[in-house]
Amino acid sequence: MNQPVNIVEKSKEIQKPWSPIEILRVNNQVVRLALFEGEYHWHKHEKEDELFYVLSGNIIIQQKGHPDQQLNEGDMIVIKKGIEHKPTSKEKSFVMLFEPISIDSKGD
Amino acid sequence: MNQPVNIVEKSKEIQKPWSPIEILRVNNQVVRLALFEGEYHWHKHEKEDELFYVLSGNIIIQQKGHPDQQLNEGDMIVIKKGIEHKPTSKEKSFVMLFEPISIDSKGD
Repeated sequence: MNQPVNIVEKSKEIQKPWSPIEILRVNNQVVRLALFEGEYHWHKHEKEDELFYVLSGNIIIQQKGHPDQQLNEGDMIVIKKGIEHKPTSKEKSFVMLFEPISIDSKGD
Repeated sequence: MNQPVNIVEKSKEIQKPWSPIEILRVNNQVVRLALFEGEYHWHKHEKEDELFYVLSGNIIIQQKGHPDQQLNEGDMIVIKKGIEHKPTSKEKSFVMLFEPISIDSKGD
């Protein structure tokens, strides 16, 4: 029988930004948890949508050709497959990712 | 371009327990938000795992033949497909569900 996992406890295992850890798998999907701090690179995922859910802090998502979007605690967004995007966070922010197991979070 | 959705704001739309509302879709999955209060019925999903993530309050999950599991704020669990389960909540608890679009939350 599966046991519950506490997200706050899991966040304490994270040492460095932009290095998601796996929380659990459900169907053909994976829930990951990441520390966002500083700038990530522009990238896209050709075949997979990607969900970001801000647990603490606040982040900026840039989607190519569109205005910046600020996401605060409790905000969730889906980046559709094929869309170039770049996450940034001025402060330490913890973000839950929900995505297919097949995804490479570094992108294409 | 997709816009962010705030989960706390969405929770204000929920009027009654055990009636999940759809937050958004990502790949072939759906994120739903539900108020758990009182007892739900025993049920299972033959083909789909179901994820519960407790946003506020605390809930009990019973899985057939196993001890009760209490989930508090920040706890997440996956109920594997085919497992009979029954959620209960003594107080008002808000729970996020991640599941395939194909699922019928009432179960079999």
